[in-house]
Amino acid sequence: MKPRIRASQFPRGVTFSAVACGLKQSGLDLGLLVSESPAAAACVFTTNLVKAAPLLISQTHLRRSAATMRAIIVNSGNANCATGPAGLLASGRTAAAVAREIGCRPEQILVCSTGVIGVPLRAERILRAVPNLTASRAARPESFARFTRAIMTTDTRAKFAAESCQIGGKRVRFLGCAKGAGMIHPRMATMLAFIATDAAAAPSMLRRALRDAVGRTFNAITVDGDTSTNDTLALLANGASGARAIRSGTAGYRNFLAAFGSVCQSLALQIVADGEGAHRVVEIEVRGAPSGGAADKVARTIANSPLVKTALAGGDPNWGRILAAAGRSGIRFNPARVEIRMAGILMCRNGRAHPFSERAAHRKLLAAHVPIVVDLRAGRGAARVWTCDFTGDYVRINASYRS
Amino acid sequence: MKPRIRASQFPRGVTFSAVACGLKQSGLDLGLLVSESPAAAACVFTTNLVKAAPLLISQTHLRRSAATMRAIIVNSGNANCATGPAGLLASGRTAAAVAREIGCRPEQILVCSTGVIGVPLRAERILRAVPNLTASRAARPESFARFTRAIMTTDTRAKFAAESCQIGGKRVRFLGCAKGAGMIHPRMATMLAFIATDAAAAPSMLRRALRDAVGRTFNAITVDGDTSTNDTLALLANGASGARAIRSGTAGYRNFLAAFGSVCQSLALQIVADGEGAHRVVEIEVRGAPSGGAADKVARTIANSPLVKTALAGGDPNWGRILAAAGRSGIRFNPARVEIRMAGILMCRNGRAHPFSERAAHRKLLAAHVPIVVDLRAGRGAARVWTCDFTGDYVRINASYRS
Repeated sequence: MKPRIRASQFPRGVTFSAVACGLKQSGLDLGLLVSESPAAAACVFTTNLVKAAPLLISQTHLRRSAATMRAIIVNSGNANCATGPAGLLASGRTAAAVAREIGCRPEQILVCSTGVIGVPLRAERILRAVPNLTASRAARPESFARFTRAIMTTDTRAKFAAESCQIGGKRVRFLGCAKGAGMIHPRMATMLAFIATDAAAAPSMLRRALRDAVGRTFNAITVDGDTSTNDTLALLANGASGARAIRSGTAGYRNFLAAFGSVCQSLALQIVADGEGAHRVVEIEVRGAPSGGAADKVARTIANSPLVKTALAGGDPNWGRILAAAGRSGIRFNPARVEIRMAGILMCRNGRAHPFSERAAHRKLLAAHVPIVVDLRAGRGAARVWTCDFTGDYVRINASYRS
Repeated sequence: MKPRIRASQFPRGVTFSAVACGLKQSGLDLGLLVSESPAAAACVFTTNLVKAAPLLISQTHLRRSAATMRAIIVNSGNANCATGPAGLLASGRTAAAVAREIGCRPEQILVCSTGVIGVPLRAERILRAVPNLTASRAARPESFARFTRAIMTTDTRAKFAAESCQIGGKRVRFLGCAKGAGMIHPRMATMLAFIATDAAAAPSMLRRALRDAVGRTFNAITVDGDTSTNDTLALLANGASGARAIRSGTAGYRNFLAAFGSVCQSLALQIVADGEGAHRVVEIEVRGAPSGGAADKVARTIANSPLVKTALAGGDPNWGRILAAAGRSGIRFNPARVEIRMAGILMCRNGRAHPFSERAAHRKLLAAHVPIVVDLRAGRGAARVWTCDFTGDYVRINASYRS
């Protein structure tokens, strides 16, 4: 599938390329995103204590360059995690090779990897491919399409989004892509997202925008409750639009955040929809919790319950499992006040069954998008998370023997 | 399958019976355990905030009778949970009916239910069956076998264990049974366990023995990480052996605890082995953690990871997923020191791959019992939990539409 991104949607001064360097058995496995002028950067990395080598290198580079970056190089087919000092060396040499070719310092390069854990990375295959990779970069839809494919692992489709907004009378553009079919899938996958814009912003403003947008988008999705060793989200802003720099509390910042948040939300939901084996996206809204944090905890407990997720695979209106998951979340509420709606149908009122047509409910629960609303009636806290159903295909994808 | 329990293994003064009262579509669904003389009791109930009506009734009865009980009545086919005041009334009337027939006070009866949540319990079917149920009780292996079947839901086999020990020169006997194929399975199942002994003990001593044994047995197993609304474990000791009462710090207590712990461990492992869709029991031992609590947290995070459990279904030596699960557990350790062994084979040393034969490992991982040892090399804390693999059958069992 060719991305439906037009050349006019490209942020200025951003180019892409991708090649097959031989890390995967076949297909594109090495991608490059370049900002042709230095770009302010903000990144979010996994909270997992076990961090892959490229994350450690990228964190160091961000610090050393004062978050002013030129490029992101990403390989699929190997996570370069649990690979010891040799893994760190491989990521460092990759950055140096890209820097040499595009003419910048190595600490202006971000490095990402996704794939199997604990297998030494064949860095020489990457290093050999870098000259061709950098030489072929272009601001063309086809180059971007190749990049989105090069970062895929168990993903069944490319994930991308574009937006634009006005800042002080100038149009700025956002172009983003992501990969990930499990929040984690440490053998074969990982969540990666890259968003480039030609807006102008200091790194501190970008970090703030990232924090504002990520909590309600990327951090509000779950496929299997696991957290990867390689998760990375990077935002680059090179200012090539000529728009003035965004500043806190201005209309420019609000416009920027709205457009950026929209790209994040689109990419996050594309990841859930392509969750390993998933048939549907399930939106879980918890209302009436003692606090926002409490609502979030209840929503995540429901979203990660294997029993809730398997019931959703079968379109089973099994609200009892939702109530039981809320009950074990650790949050205090009165079970005798709870209301639960699945696909718009009230099924539980005052903590007990409310009559509904099982057949009609079953039919509605087989839709591609299923909303669930749980009202604890214990306060004003609310939260929303997205998950997917848990199917036999998830097991088949993840149980297969590696060799 | 007929339980291999002999009449000589029965604790004195304990009888069983079971009937089909019509809560399930077919088969036994109502069981009774009677101590013919008053028995000291200790119980553990679910920690889920949402508690089924029979648990609330049983908790009240334990308090009112000063933990001196006569019988346990259990129905399958309906959890009597999220059923409002009518559910409480149903459990109360059930206890009263049994008390009338066997000649005791209603607060000397424990009531348990297991099955679908949120469906009104047809108490009249139970009440109608009680006279026949109480009249047919006997200290016979066949009666016990019927009881173990009457409490089953998605279980594929009856779970039971017997033990004996000497206390002050007298032989005392333990007989226990359990049901449960998910730690929770709020629609159709629940963990229930009942253990009777003719040892003599004050309720406070029983509570202590229960605490001592449960942490390393029933609370160290997980099938899907969910916690039921109906989980109940009851221990009754009627003193009919004539042995002297066990007392803290004596050889009698140690003998009692060893025999009781052995029954608990046997029942707990039978539950994991019969986990929904499971092919194998996986024993996860974490060593070298900063503390015992930290070891337990790491072990549980690994034991509940869908990615680890699906890999185990396929016999995949995917140690990277184990390392990643440990990394997101919230416990601090140095990833570069970790050692991981699966089925006795060292696969990860100093946080990275250690050479092993994938074929040999795959073959060993397909066994019925797979040990995993994770050494964090960060302290002296250790813990052990048991889980099962996560198969396509789990999804099939749990995704099926209710009607």
